[in-house]
Amino acid sequence: MPDHVHDDLRVAVVGAGIMGGDHVRRLTHRVSGARVVSVVEPDADRAARAVADAPGARARGSLPEALARDDVDAVVVASPGPFHEETLLVCLEAGLPTLCEKPLTPDSHGARRVMDAEQKGARPLIQVGFMRRYDAEYRELHALVTSGDAGALLALHCAHRNCSTPPGYVESMMITDSVVHEIDAVAWLAGEPVTAVEVKKPRRNGRAPQGLHEPQLVLLTTASGVLADVEINVNSGIGYQVTTDAVLESAVASIGRTAGITQWRDGRMVTAEHTTYTTRFQAAYDAEVQQWADATRRGVVDGPTTWDGYRAAAVCVAALEAQATGRRVEVEYIDRPAFYAATDGAA
Amino acid sequence: MPDHVHDDLRVAVVGAGIMGGDHVRRLTHRVSGARVVSVVEPDADRAARAVADAPGARARGSLPEALARDDVDAVVVASPGPFHEETLLVCLEAGLPTLCEKPLTPDSHGARRVMDAEQKGARPLIQVGFMRRYDAEYRELHALVTSGDAGALLALHCAHRNCSTPPGYVESMMITDSVVHEIDAVAWLAGEPVTAVEVKKPRRNGRAPQGLHEPQLVLLTTASGVLADVEINVNSGIGYQVTTDAVLESAVASIGRTAGITQWRDGRMVTAEHTTYTTRFQAAYDAEVQQWADATRRGVVDGPTTWDGYRAAAVCVAALEAQATGRRVEVEYIDRPAFYAATDGAA
Amino acid sequence: MPDHVHDDLRVAVVGAGIMGGDHVRRLTHRVSGARVVSVVEPDADRAARAVADAPGARARGSLPEALARDDVDAVVVASPGPFHEETLLVCLEAGLPTLCEKPLTPDSHGARRVMDAEQKGARPLIQVGFMRRYDAEYRELHALVTSGDAGALLALHCAHRNCSTPPGYVESMMITDSVVHEIDAVAWLAGEPVTAVEVKKPRRNGRAPQGLHEPQLVLLTTASGVLADVEINVNSGIGYQVTTDAVLESAVASIGRTAGITQWRDGRMVTAEHTTYTTRFQAAYDAEVQQWADATRRGVVDGPTTWDGYRAAAVCVAALEAQATGRRVEVEYIDRPAFYAATDGAA
Amino acid sequence: MPDHVHDDLRVAVVGAGIMGGDHVRRLTHRVSGARVVSVVEPDADRAARAVADAPGARARGSLPEALARDDVDAVVVASPGPFHEETLLVCLEAGLPTLCEKPLTPDSHGARRVMDAEQKGARPLIQVGFMRRYDAEYRELHALVTSGDAGALLALHCAHRNCSTPPGYVESMMITDSVVHEIDAVAWLAGEPVTAVEVKKPRRNGRAPQGLHEPQLVLLTTASGVLADVEINVNSGIGYQVTTDAVLESAVASIGRTAGITQWRDGRMVTAEHTTYTTRFQAAYDAEVQQWADATRRGVVDGPTTWDGYRAAAVCVAALEAQATGRRVEVEYIDRPAFYAATDGAA
Repeated sequence: MPDHVHDDLRVAVVGAGIMGGDHVRRLTHRVSGARVVSVVEPDADRAARAVADAPGARARGSLPEALARDDVDAVVVASPGPFHEETLLVCLEAGLPTLCEKPLTPDSHGARRVMDAEQKGARPLIQVGFMRRYDAEYRELHALVTSGDAGALLALHCAHRNCSTPPGYVESMMITDSVVHEIDAVAWLAGEPVTAVEVKKPRRNGRAPQGLHEPQLVLLTTASGVLADVEINVNSGIGYQVTTDAVLESAVASIGRTAGITQWRDGRMVTAEHTTYTTRFQAAYDAEVQQWADATRRGVVDGPTTWDGYRAAAVCVAALEAQATGRRVEVEYIDRPAFYAATDGAA
Repeated sequence: MPDHVHDDLRVAVVGAGIMGGDHVRRLTHRVSGARVVSVVEPDADRAARAVADAPGARARGSLPEALARDDVDAVVVASPGPFHEETLLVCLEAGLPTLCEKPLTPDSHGARRVMDAEQKGARPLIQVGFMRRYDAEYRELHALVTSGDAGALLALHCAHRNCSTPPGYVESMMITDSVVHEIDAVAWLAGEPVTAVEVKKPRRNGRAPQGLHEPQLVLLTTASGVLADVEINVNSGIGYQVTTDAVLESAVASIGRTAGITQWRDGRMVTAEHTTYTTRFQAAYDAEVQQWADATRRGVVDGPTTWDGYRAAAVCVAALEAQATGRRVEVEYIDRPAFYAATDGAA
Repeated sequence: MPDHVHDDLRVAVVGAGIMGGDHVRRLTHRVSGARVVSVVEPDADRAARAVADAPGARARGSLPEALARDDVDAVVVASPGPFHEETLLVCLEAGLPTLCEKPLTPDSHGARRVMDAEQKGARPLIQVGFMRRYDAEYRELHALVTSGDAGALLALHCAHRNCSTPPGYVESMMITDSVVHEIDAVAWLAGEPVTAVEVKKPRRNGRAPQGLHEPQLVLLTTASGVLADVEINVNSGIGYQVTTDAVLESAVASIGRTAGITQWRDGRMVTAEHTTYTTRFQAAYDAEVQQWADATRRGVVDGPTTWDGYRAAAVCVAALEAQATGRRVEVEYIDRPAFYAATDGAA
Repeated sequence: MPDHVHDDLRVAVVGAGIMGGDHVRRLTHRVSGARVVSVVEPDADRAARAVADAPGARARGSLPEALARDDVDAVVVASPGPFHEETLLVCLEAGLPTLCEKPLTPDSHGARRVMDAEQKGARPLIQVGFMRRYDAEYRELHALVTSGDAGALLALHCAHRNCSTPPGYVESMMITDSVVHEIDAVAWLAGEPVTAVEVKKPRRNGRAPQGLHEPQLVLLTTASGVLADVEINVNSGIGYQVTTDAVLESAVASIGRTAGITQWRDGRMVTAEHTTYTTRFQAAYDAEVQQWADATRRGVVDGPTTWDGYRAAAVCVAALEAQATGRRVEVEYIDRPAFYAATDGAA
């Protein structure tokens, strides 16, 4: 941790792909009180490109190497999900506050091992990158639900639409990479865990790559019965769109509609829509990382914790079974450790 | 049928409740080439009020009485659903073209008996009042789907929200009185029958009357796999709203959003929304009845037929079982009679 | 006038161009209680096309010929403006209720001669076709202003945009054919006459035909100081759009925004906009003609009268001077005859 | 200037009112690479509050005192406009890069004196706080205009609406404090100076404080004839709204419409609107100050310069005369010094 309030938080960023590169630029150019000192990335070209954006940062081949050679106060993990567990265990061993991109781990067993390791320390150190909690409209919706002034939340209609999938994308990733955001957001908005999952498969989009049956409709039920239907549609060919309609007892609230300049031309009214998550959620990512840096400098975690990451992983496990079998699957959780009590519901 | 092109279609309206009274005013004041000659309604007060709106019309206690005493060219049936079968058999016996409000009959057995009787005649005489097929936005959506220029239809997200339910409203009416519209519209938009139904029950709205568990989410699957989720929400306390988002292979099309005057006042942007179906679908009802009157004067039925009414009734039967059991229920149909081949898909 | 309530109003339509042909179809197929008996049109082809749409109607070469040979109860005038005066004098002479498309006459002198002739009769017979008063959103706005619940009306921002102008369109027609609608609507909304006009000419649209400097900004001031700016833009190349933002003391109300099916495709949100006034204001025209037919059968005029037509013509005269000189021009009116007192402000 | 790239820009903020306090928080908590070292504010309470938000910053009674005692790299000026000239001369004397809130000076004479002083240096040091150039939608509109793909810009319809005015607000401030933003934005969007101004006064809002005749309609004409009408409406009692519709040769583009969560409740569709400029333009202010800090660290000015500030002041002078006299007033400018050539049009 920095000695003086004026000292920037010195961050090692692990992974320099699209997300990691984006975090490097964000920490360097848009976040107050933080700077990148190490970029950990095995691909030398990627590493070089990321470092070029961050004056003073060094490219390192591994996190231990970075920790050994640079003055690191905190870590941002943006490598692929299967590598998260190993990296997080190194961070915990070093006692370093860490912001880990979602998913925390690909399944709930890995998440439990991370929780076990974290609980050996004095306080939670890990925050999970569920950035939707920092999006202005999601926050307005969360405030409406928790205020109670439109009655209880009853149902959610969510749509999560991508333009296309990268090579190597397989059907299970619709759950673990995409719907995992809604899995966290539904629990956060409802203020209670998801307890059952079902997956429906409508008529297949002929544009989808071989082996991918999509769109799909994922039905999530929470403890008190809030029912969320999530359309996951990852080869729309159109753009990037994330919307939610929340049905409350005396209101229906909608977020995620297109904004921005509107043109009347060629006989139509036209508004541009996003094409990638990096623009759609740029302000949310900026707010997330700024708030994480601020909290880290104060010595706390005030965003989604490892517990939230574990919970999402447990729902993913059930959703994958539901996706494969067509059946409704109950979600199983361990009891919540008291260790995570204080920070839950933060953000 | 009228002798001369200038003669108005002389209509008997059966039932003078909200819907029937609305049809009397429509036929009298807004439809070209038709006028009401008889209002058939056992409640004398209601009958008198309706007749006062229709110069030249007579109140009659029964349809046979009206047919015996007035010159009736065609019939509009707007009495409660359980009375439809008996009325329709009278109309068919008299060879009179008839526009029958939905539902054709409460179940598919009644619908089959009506079809059997109708097939004794030379041509279809009955049109069923699925007025959404005449709503401008539904027609635009239908045209988009059938054009194929955004690829195949894959899924539909529908919402059907009422302000409150009248006394005597029971849970099954969510299917037979409300969702029956979506049941017809989904088949019409998809161009194929609904083959399976499932009903999900989210957390219950505390505003709902005793015995009513709502909202509900009705999942309809068509022959090729188009999946429609329908939120039915009949005690929102807010207003009347019917929306659809259609997911096609390369577009998502939305209809039913609020239009009209927008006011910036009290710190907010505010647009009025409908509170009843009579205003929301007034233009659709007007178009439906005008087109029915025009077709009737030409001696044809060009809207949804008894076959469409039967098909909707068969889905309702399955949906009621799904609602009661929580299970997915397949829909069973008889083979389609050649008699109904020519007019299907009309409107 | 018809003898019996069941008898249709028998209408002669003068002029069978776009507007006249539209009125023939409307009276024949969508208006209750009226039918076309004569189409008066010197162009034989046009006349034949219009008559083909109206069973029972006859093509006539002149209005006197129609009146001599057909049973005419009322007249709809849709010929070019310069011919209106002569036609209206025939109608008044024959004592026939008449709906006259705008402009009543090209200038205020003609309008005064028509008023003089009309006042020789027992009651007003002429209604002027300012159909915006029958548009649902204009009516909502009018109701908001007259309710006073958002305070006084202070200013109006209007846009009136056409796709392109027909051959023969000259700059003065931007006032007399297009802005004349706003000239009436502003007086109607403000509840008082327009007292001064000014015309500003922004940078010229290179798409405009030779000799046409447009768009233009017409500033209308009413008696109490309400200031309306009207963008008139008749070669946008895009479509047809008529919008108004009304600034009240404690609200800003907007009408005329695009509605209808919205599509997310090709990376954008797209809503179709109108391309012609016949679709944009179809419902308003239908309502206007239906209400005119109803009132005519009751023996009254309840829409804009010859006085409103005169008033608009007087403003047009001032606006043409303002357009030519760049100066602010005061509008001069005669005193309002008591003859027109009763029906003003109707609709 | 900082020695090392890692060193933060050390900023003195002059003025700790609403705007100054906002800049202190922004520089401290949301801008990367900058921090506040001095808050210059004669009001000790205000100074203390601002300093409490900025760890390490000191409250100072005057800018010379701050420069004498703190290590200042750059200055942000947020004091009242009449004090700007004196402060800017101190900054220029000290060779310090400065971001000065609008207006640069209350009139064009002061602006010329500042330009004279600045030109004694090697390069421009002052940026003027026209933050709309940093608003995402304004930038999209600017890009559309400069791309030329919708033809030339012809006209602009602008609305600038505030909830209410603070004590001491007088009519001239509608020009110098409010419309000054549109004065800069119109020149920026049109890519050329405003050459004439006219002010129209619609019916007065009864809510306005005594002595304030508003709303007003300010007409700005640019060199090539682009005509902008600006509704300035500072006691709407509703909220804060800034919108622009740009009329191009083949498109009409609109910015500033309400976005955010939409609720269907109480029978209406409702979207919250802003109530203050600090929220409406927060992202624009953040982007402006971040980009200014980045450019300052690179040793350049890449935003609106003193020349832009002078130009706006010259238009304000003409607009005040137009407001007072009701006449159209031509704007007079000095020739543009070559000194300002390189950076103009930036942002």
